Amino acid sequence: MRRNWGNWGEFDAPRGSKSKKPVELKEIGEFGLISWIRGKMDLRDSNIASGIGDDAAVITPPKRCVSLVTTDILIEDTHFRLDYTDPLRLGKKALSINLSDIAAMGGTPQYFLLSMGLPLHLPFRWIEEFFHGVQQVAEEYNLSLIGGDTSLARKLTINVTLIGRGKAGEVIYRKGAQAGDQIMVTGTLGNAALGLRILKSHKGDSSISRAGDSDLAELIEKHFSPTSRIAEGRLIAKNHLASAMIDISDGLMADLGHILEESHAGAKIWISQLPLSEAYRRKAPQYISRDIDLAISGGEDYELLLTTPRKKGEKLLGLFRQSGLKITPIGEIVDPRYGLRLLLDDGREYTPRRKGHDHFKKPR
Amino acid sequence: MRRNWGNWGEFDAPRGSKSKKPVELKEIGEFGLISWIRGKMDLRDSNIASGIGDDAAVITPPKRCVSLVTTDILIEDTHFRLDYTDPLRLGKKALSINLSDIAAMGGTPQYFLLSMGLPLHLPFRWIEEFFHGVQQVAEEYNLSLIGGDTSLARKLTINVTLIGRGKAGEVIYRKGAQAGDQIMVTGTLGNAALGLRILKSHKGDSSISRAGDSDLAELIEKHFSPTSRIAEGRLIAKNHLASAMIDISDGLMADLGHILEESHAGAKIWISQLPLSEAYRRKAPQYISRDIDLAISGGEDYELLLTTPRKKGEKLLGLFRQSGLKITPIGEIVDPRYGLRLLLDDGREYTPRRKGHDHFKKPR
Repeated sequence: MRRNWGNWGEFDAPRGSKSKKPVELKEIGEFGLISWIRGKMDLRDSNIASGIGDDAAVITPPKRCVSLVTTDILIEDTHFRLDYTDPLRLGKKALSINLSDIAAMGGTPQYFLLSMGLPLHLPFRWIEEFFHGVQQVAEEYNLSLIGGDTSLARKLTINVTLIGRGKAGEVIYRKGAQAGDQIMVTGTLGNAALGLRILKSHKGDSSISRAGDSDLAELIEKHFSPTSRIAEGRLIAKNHLASAMIDISDGLMADLGHILEESHAGAKIWISQLPLSEAYRRKAPQYISRDIDLAISGGEDYELLLTTPRKKGEKLLGLFRQSGLKITPIGEIVDPRYGLRLLLDDGREYTPRRKGHDHFKKPR
Repeated sequence: MRRNWGNWGEFDAPRGSKSKKPVELKEIGEFGLISWIRGKMDLRDSNIASGIGDDAAVITPPKRCVSLVTTDILIEDTHFRLDYTDPLRLGKKALSINLSDIAAMGGTPQYFLLSMGLPLHLPFRWIEEFFHGVQQVAEEYNLSLIGGDTSLARKLTINVTLIGRGKAGEVIYRKGAQAGDQIMVTGTLGNAALGLRILKSHKGDSSISRAGDSDLAELIEKHFSPTSRIAEGRLIAKNHLASAMIDISDGLMADLGHILEESHAGAKIWISQLPLSEAYRRKAPQYISRDIDLAISGGEDYELLLTTPRKKGEKLLGLFRQSGLKITPIGEIVDPRYGLRLLLDDGREYTPRRKGHDHFKKPR
């Protein structure tokens, strides 16, 4: 049975009450919340023997498959600010960033667990909208919430663990890139980082995305609602088209760096080939001095970055064209002694101001 | 190869440096930390195709088994205070509380993922000791760290997801208790809650546990270092001795309440049968007025609470005796209309002051 998410405010002030104060978490209680979540979320999979409501979830592993497991934590004031994040989009993002990791292995997502640290005075309506976002993504990708934990916290904290499946012979690792392989990337680069930059320059006022400038709206939306390239990952995996793959969460350079490290390889990237959106091309020069840098080092695009043996490159491009999906060759894997270099059209090397995101180090 | 955990301070101030300041996380960086963790933690299982260092872990599910998955979040100032928690014990506890959930399903733990939100100025030595604790437990139970996430946070935050296996016919749920079943509990009740109470009454000064009073030391240790009843859970599961089981994290009454709810049953508990440690009997009267209440409602004992069909009760007690493990009958499952009642020896009902822990509600 589909649950009715349109039925907002079921925990709002009791009828007849004159209070206009929104209902807070402390009035619902921990077990009220868990029971509410359990009632809202569908189990979409007959392989779940037990989901929420026992000490551990019990799932029957798919036959002839490996399990893929990933986890990501989102913390208030580190990953998002409550004052300029809407809960629906944050709910979507909490799942999307994990989906992206399963996409990067070429897998199919199935189950997730959700831990939340919640401030006592959080309006219950915030939680309702957050779960509305979670459920939109769960529905789109046919995911089941099988467990979680809820706790009190000063800063809102969200941890998602996502479990998927893959066929052993199809899984794509970070290791495996070889000299001569083409480097390709899905979608476009830099939109999410530019969207965040724009938002910050407007002091977080996300209403600018509704002010009629469709470029601004597109860039800001990519920051708030990254897409997960599950379809692209599956297309690549089932046709055995990639020698290595990763999702771009910390920026092109940082994440290509991970592939190179695990594969013991070097790489050339052609700056002029980096796929940029029209919105990026038009807006980036207004917000940063070296307008390519966010496409090189900006995080959170959640596009797939992969290497493909040269003889498979044409087939890959053809399959993506047929499927209406976007992918762009941007460079080549070379000998590890070469390192990682970004090249301009005239052959000169380009050095961006910063290389990627490190949570514990200030950007240089 | 066993890694050398005794080699403390490898990130301490460089030789020759005059600085006595401990090295902080910001000097190590996110990727320095991940690489350090990866170097320290052993993979103990040939079913791991890929652990830390890819977008998702890749594990081959065990044949003819179900997967058990559980997650728990620990947040500074909600679950622990940095000023009176030593990191080694916290590392052990972060795993133990999840192990307890796998124990309560009758399963065998295998893999875990660890997300950490870390304050920038945390001394690196703290992280070293925390992981030392994590590894002690991982070694004891043969667990492999297969993934995780690290992030900046104001308040230290730890989320563990633990994956185990069980045989489909052996897994024990919360549902399944039937009228006439005996209710039993492993170990003793109330030590952890009394330990915390004592600690609070000494303003968190944990040195009191080293002041020569072995009762105080035992009670406080149970708060900091709960044991996981994996052996007990396996013994019960493989002999098909329980109709329902749960671990006691929120208190006997609250967790028995979960079994009753899922099983649609009622229960009688005989107060005089509750297993108390000698230390509890001696110290509880000094710290609380109704000295049985912490055994009834205190959380974090992480003992197993189970129901067993009457005809299997003797076999269960015999097996536990043979194995040198402690288990005690404390009551009986009855008709759901009876509810949950605590009975004194004279047949009168006893009502404790509070029923259990709710993160979002103040104790009554």
